[in-house]
Amino acid sequence: MSTTTLLLQLIVILGTARVCGWALRHLGQPSVVGEMAAGMLLGPVVMGALLPEVHGQLFAKATLGGLSALSTVGLVLFMFVIGLELRAHQGVRQQLRAAGYVGVISTIVPLVLGVALAPVLHPALVPAGIGFWPFALFLGAALSITAFPVLARILKDRGLSTTAFGQLSLSAAAVVDVVAWIVLAFVVALAGAGEGYDALLKITVGAVLLAGLVYGLLRPFFAWLLRTHAPDGEPSTTVLASLMIGLLGCALLTEWLHLHAVFGAFLFGTCLPRDDRLLRSLAQRIEPLSIVVLMPLFFALAGLSTSANAFSNASLGAMLLILAAATFGKIGGGLAGARLAGYGWRDSLATGSLMNARGLMELIVIKVGLDAGLIGPELFTMLLVMALATTAMTGPLMNLIGGRVVAAHGTTASLATEPGPREA
Amino acid sequence: MSTTTLLLQLIVILGTARVCGWALRHLGQPSVVGEMAAGMLLGPVVMGALLPEVHGQLFAKATLGGLSALSTVGLVLFMFVIGLELRAHQGVRQQLRAAGYVGVISTIVPLVLGVALAPVLHPALVPAGIGFWPFALFLGAALSITAFPVLARILKDRGLSTTAFGQLSLSAAAVVDVVAWIVLAFVVALAGAGEGYDALLKITVGAVLLAGLVYGLLRPFFAWLLRTHAPDGEPSTTVLASLMIGLLGCALLTEWLHLHAVFGAFLFGTCLPRDDRLLRSLAQRIEPLSIVVLMPLFFALAGLSTSANAFSNASLGAMLLILAAATFGKIGGGLAGARLAGYGWRDSLATGSLMNARGLMELIVIKVGLDAGLIGPELFTMLLVMALATTAMTGPLMNLIGGRVVAAHGTTASLATEPGPREA
Repeated sequence: MSTTTLLLQLIVILGTARVCGWALRHLGQPSVVGEMAAGMLLGPVVMGALLPEVHGQLFAKATLGGLSALSTVGLVLFMFVIGLELRAHQGVRQQLRAAGYVGVISTIVPLVLGVALAPVLHPALVPAGIGFWPFALFLGAALSITAFPVLARILKDRGLSTTAFGQLSLSAAAVVDVVAWIVLAFVVALAGAGEGYDALLKITVGAVLLAGLVYGLLRPFFAWLLRTHAPDGEPSTTVLASLMIGLLGCALLTEWLHLHAVFGAFLFGTCLPRDDRLLRSLAQRIEPLSIVVLMPLFFALAGLSTSANAFSNASLGAMLLILAAATFGKIGGGLAGARLAGYGWRDSLATGSLMNARGLMELIVIKVGLDAGLIGPELFTMLLVMALATTAMTGPLMNLIGGRVVAAHGTTASLATEPGPREA
Repeated sequence: MSTTTLLLQLIVILGTARVCGWALRHLGQPSVVGEMAAGMLLGPVVMGALLPEVHGQLFAKATLGGLSALSTVGLVLFMFVIGLELRAHQGVRQQLRAAGYVGVISTIVPLVLGVALAPVLHPALVPAGIGFWPFALFLGAALSITAFPVLARILKDRGLSTTAFGQLSLSAAAVVDVVAWIVLAFVVALAGAGEGYDALLKITVGAVLLAGLVYGLLRPFFAWLLRTHAPDGEPSTTVLASLMIGLLGCALLTEWLHLHAVFGAFLFGTCLPRDDRLLRSLAQRIEPLSIVVLMPLFFALAGLSTSANAFSNASLGAMLLILAAATFGKIGGGLAGARLAGYGWRDSLATGSLMNARGLMELIVIKVGLDAGLIGPELFTMLLVMALATTAMTGPLMNLIGGRVVAAHGTTASLATEPGPREA
């Protein structure tokens, strides 16, 4: 019976994800928007309301353990490849100053706006036992995310990858990744360890030890292993298994430090040698199953964690506030940063609009917050809708701005076609 | 907490599998023997006896749902690739008569010996509620398995793939796969549906409908899909997702028919177009994660299902009987078949010895039997030990026979080196 349920859940989830991905791609959206929407459709808000009995049977709480394990493995693999890619991305060094301006300012502005919103949202939406500051800082961190992968995808689909603002926003997104994830890790650790001086000390010591272990020990070890056992960048079964054990070990260590497995996975990805062949061959081995089979399960579980309360009249105002703070904070911050770095208005606006795509990364962040008890299902739902909306608006915004920007760079914009394996 | 447990289980299992695989490879064994042994080590017989508290905490019954889901997905993916490979293997048509003799006789002899053993084993080892014939036929089917993948691996490692008896045993193993799995499906369905005329009718109708669906509907559909959307044999994300949905759908249908998901997965693999590029690109996308990460979980769960009772004095006799029936039945049957087909004594003996390798396939079969309630943990353990022993003896037996056979074919035998991604 349990195998039957699991297979049925997998079929329904993969089927819905593909249909929605396909439908939204025909509307010019990256298919990750469709897959995120598929997760919402399978949750209590849509399927649970339309087919309550089927939904209750198919996704009964007691049957979700298997999906959850598959999704955890998928998430760890996904974040590992993100870390690898971040390291392989060379742009940051080439335009450090501009990427720094855009990255830092477009992180700080939505972060501050998020913290500023917290006193308004706190009374109604904070879970029991969570203090004001962890809640406020998490909200800020959640608003400050940019999705490096979906951004790369949008640029590639439109032939904008080699434009100045395209390169700039990619590099800035890499900076945001680092800054926002450090803030987030800090907040989550704070929530797990409690507030106060002792907790701060614990987090700091833990983080230093972890960084020392990963960069002082694992980095040289795996550099040696890959140099001697996979000099052509093609890891054998044994090397791949060693990488997996290292990856799972880092994920486990971060869980022990009251962080979340995704941080360790990401960190481990960044410690491997910068090698395009290695990145390509690891991505070839890891991405097909994790992107096609495992990530839709993550979206579905996120959808199952949503709450219809977020769509009540009382809550819609809060949702709009969050969406506005996220959008204006991000676009404004990106625009300001690019202007400061000497870019023209149009390129700066395009950069800001691209930084606003939050994609799957935002879902990972809010899932971390939900698991850590920093937010409840209602705020989780609002942030999920915000992630969907900001990601979906990037394409149309680029259409508005893009035509002229593209003309200025002498290439033609192409609409989204069949996408590659990943876009998040 | 649950994520921590899952990560810890994954690390321990993958680590043990790699260490054992590495150790046994240095003894000239294919690493799958080591990985199977690793599963036994993690079970109650070894780790459970040495470190009962750690074992009880790490592998508590309530925490195995995640591992089980991951292992199910791994198994379905694995059997799908086996089905694909069977279809791509051209040998059977080229030497239909000889492969038929070896395949059929080396299936029937151990099957008959297994049934003959059943009256001896039945009183002590049959689970409650299972009649004599399902038990006896299952035991026969379990003894009659040959592992196509591990056989291919052993031949490749020793440079014997192109020898006459190498080709013969590969083709015969393909025949065994088909015959033994049909017998097994029949037995499992019988156990699920109950004995009697009605049950037989149900099984027959279900099997005909399933075969009609897969070969009449899915086969032309996927042939068309692959021809139009992946003419270069490189499936896109969408095509890969469609294949996964078809695969999971077939697995689900067989579960509904009181069979086991592995049958549907295997059947679906055999219905795809015979195309080497497609096989290669699908294997590249599916095998790394399923072989390196997911299959060791299957071995570990098999190990956790074993029982120390199988090693009591009272049971050792039964275990030896099973081992003898399996070994002599298979080697004798293969030898007889090859002699009948006109091969010399040495080549025939080598063929029989190769057919005796049961590898991972045997574990899948006995897991099916355990899940269906046809056997209990004690007999499961005996059959697992038999699978390990028969697979491990293939290399030494080939050393005994091989030197002369190889000389007769003018090539040199090479010992096992670093193996490729799969060997089961």
